[in-house]
Amino acid sequence: MTEVKPIGRIAIIGTGVIGASWTALFLAKGLEVVATDVAPNAEAALTKFVDNAKPALQRLGLSPKASRSNLKFTADLAEAVAGADLVQENGPERIDFKQKLYGQLDALLPSDVIIASSSSGLTMSEIQKGAAEHPERCVIAHPFNPPHLIPLVEIVGGAKTSKETIRRAAEFYTSIGQRTVRLNKEMPGHVANRLQAALMREVYYLVAEGVVSAADVDTALSWGPGLRWGVMGNMMLNHLGGGQGGIEHFLQQFTAPVTAWWKTLGSPVLTPEVQKKLIDSVHAEVGSRTIDELAAERDEVLLGLLELRTKRPETAAPHSAAAK
Amino acid sequence: MTEVKPIGRIAIIGTGVIGASWTALFLAKGLEVVATDVAPNAEAALTKFVDNAKPALQRLGLSPKASRSNLKFTADLAEAVAGADLVQENGPERIDFKQKLYGQLDALLPSDVIIASSSSGLTMSEIQKGAAEHPERCVIAHPFNPPHLIPLVEIVGGAKTSKETIRRAAEFYTSIGQRTVRLNKEMPGHVANRLQAALMREVYYLVAEGVVSAADVDTALSWGPGLRWGVMGNMMLNHLGGGQGGIEHFLQQFTAPVTAWWKTLGSPVLTPEVQKKLIDSVHAEVGSRTIDELAAERDEVLLGLLELRTKRPETAAPHSAAAK
Repeated sequence: MTEVKPIGRIAIIGTGVIGASWTALFLAKGLEVVATDVAPNAEAALTKFVDNAKPALQRLGLSPKASRSNLKFTADLAEAVAGADLVQENGPERIDFKQKLYGQLDALLPSDVIIASSSSGLTMSEIQKGAAEHPERCVIAHPFNPPHLIPLVEIVGGAKTSKETIRRAAEFYTSIGQRTVRLNKEMPGHVANRLQAALMREVYYLVAEGVVSAADVDTALSWGPGLRWGVMGNMMLNHLGGGQGGIEHFLQQFTAPVTAWWKTLGSPVLTPEVQKKLIDSVHAEVGSRTIDELAAERDEVLLGLLELRTKRPETAAPHSAAAK
Repeated sequence: MTEVKPIGRIAIIGTGVIGASWTALFLAKGLEVVATDVAPNAEAALTKFVDNAKPALQRLGLSPKASRSNLKFTADLAEAVAGADLVQENGPERIDFKQKLYGQLDALLPSDVIIASSSSGLTMSEIQKGAAEHPERCVIAHPFNPPHLIPLVEIVGGAKTSKETIRRAAEFYTSIGQRTVRLNKEMPGHVANRLQAALMREVYYLVAEGVVSAADVDTALSWGPGLRWGVMGNMMLNHLGGGQGGIEHFLQQFTAPVTAWWKTLGSPVLTPEVQKKLIDSVHAEVGSRTIDELAAERDEVLLGLLELRTKRPETAAPHSAAAK
C-alpha cells in the first residue's frame, strides 16, 4: 500500500452549529478549511462563530500554524472539496439527502479522500449506499457537541467501510488532540448519546414523579457521580471502587444492589404534562439567570477541567482506538 | 418552638469506610467527633484513615477549629453518644440490626438529637420503627462515597420523620460545605446511586455486547458527557442545550431522538460469562497500572475539579434543600 498524503486540508459541508464548531477546531489545529453551505447567511454566521470560539481555543492552545486566513468559504460544493484531504460532512439528517450528497462527493473526490460524517441519527451502512464507487472511504466520525470544546470523536464504519479508513480516521482525529473511540458495531446514538439518554431517562423520571426538583437532581449529579465522570470513566471507577480487589471485588459486592436498582429504574413517557413539569422545575432552578450567563459559567468551568485533565498524564484510555 | 443548640459534637457509629470518611470530614470542619465500632482493630484503622485523608482535606480547606484532638474513640455505644448533638450511623445494612440499634439510641438520646443514617439500601420508614419514642428525629443523610471528598448528601425522611428534622439536617450538612438534596419520596438507591445505576446499565451492555471496549466506553464518558456532568447537572445542561429557546426548545428538538434511543437501551444480565467479559476488558484498559496509582490519579484530578467548582459562584442549585 502506498503512503497517503497527510491530512492538511479539510472540506466542511454544512456550517450549522456542528460544522461551525468543527471549523473553529480545525483552524485552531493549524489546518486549512474550505467550508460550504447553501444557507443565505452561512458565511457571516460561520465567521461570527469562529471569532466567538477563539478565546476558548487560545486558552486550550493554538497550533503555531493556526491562522484565520486558512479559512475559505464557497457556496459551491465542487469548489469546496477540490484538493481536500478529508471531508467533514454535517448535512441534514435525512437519508435521501445524504445518499445523494455521498454520490456527488464520491464522483468529485479521489478514492483516498476520507468522507467523514458527523451524523448521530443515521448509520454509515445506509449513507454509503449513495457512494457507489468508493463506499470504503466513508465513515462516521461523530463529535460530541461542541467539538471545539469537547474532545470526543466516535468512529464507526458501515458494512462497506475499510479497516484502513477507520485506522486513518482515528489517527487523524487523535493527531489533532481529539479522543477517539471505536465502535465495533453500528448502534443508534453511537455510545456517548446512548449513555446520556440512559442517564436522562432516570433524571426525567425522578423529576416527573416529584421525587426531586430539577435543582436537586442537578446537585445530585454534578456534586456526586458527575464529579467522578468528569475525571474517569465508569469501568475504571468500578475497578477502583473494588479497593485492592479491583473490578472482580466490585462486581462481587455490587452486582446484587445494582441489579436490584435496575429493576426499579423508571421509563417516563414525555407527555405534554410531563414536559411541562420538567420545564417548570428547570425554570425554578434557573431563576433570573440568563442563558448567556449560565452558558458562560458552564464553559468557564469546562475549560478549567479540560486544562486540568490535559495537563496530566492520560488515565482513561491508554489502549484507545488510535493505538489499535 | 425553642431554639435548639448548634451542632458541634457528632457521634459516629460504625467506622468502616463510610464512617471513617465522615469522621475525617467532620474533624476537618472543626467539629468534635466521638466514634464507636465493635471491630477489634477499629480505632487503629480509623486513625490511619483520618491521617491519610488529611492532605486532601488540607487542600480543600480546614476549619480554624479543626484538630486531631477533637477525635475520641470508644467501643461503648452509650459513652459514644453521650453529649452528641447528631448521630451519624453507618452500621451494617440489615434491618433487624438497625431497628435494634435505633431502639437503643432512642432510649439513650434526648429527643432533639438527630439520628442520621448513611444507609443506601434501607428506608427510614423501616429503620425508624425501632425508635418507638422519637422516630421523628430519625432521617436518612446518605453521603456519596467518600464523603470527605464528594460533597453530596441526600436527605430523605421516613413516614414518621418530622419536617423540622429534615430542615435541621439539611441546614447542618450545608453549613459544613456539603451539597444537600431533598427527596420527597423514599426511593431504592435514593437519587445519585440510581443515576449511577442507570448509566452503568448501558455501559455494561455496550461492553458485554462487544460494541466498545472498557477503555473506549470510558473515553466516551469521561471525555464526552462526563466532562459536562462534572460541571453542571443534566436539567441545566438541557436548558442550555436548547440555545436561546432553553429547555422548551430542547424538548421540542430532542424528545423524538432521545425517546427513540430509550427504546434501544440494553438490559444486560450479569451472568458469570458477562462478568468475565467486563473484567477482561477492564484489565486490558488498566494494563500494568496499580490500583494505588490509578486512585491517586483519580483523586488528584477530582481535587482540582473541586477547587475549580468551589472557587466559582454556585451554578447548580441556588434553590437547594437548605433554602427550602
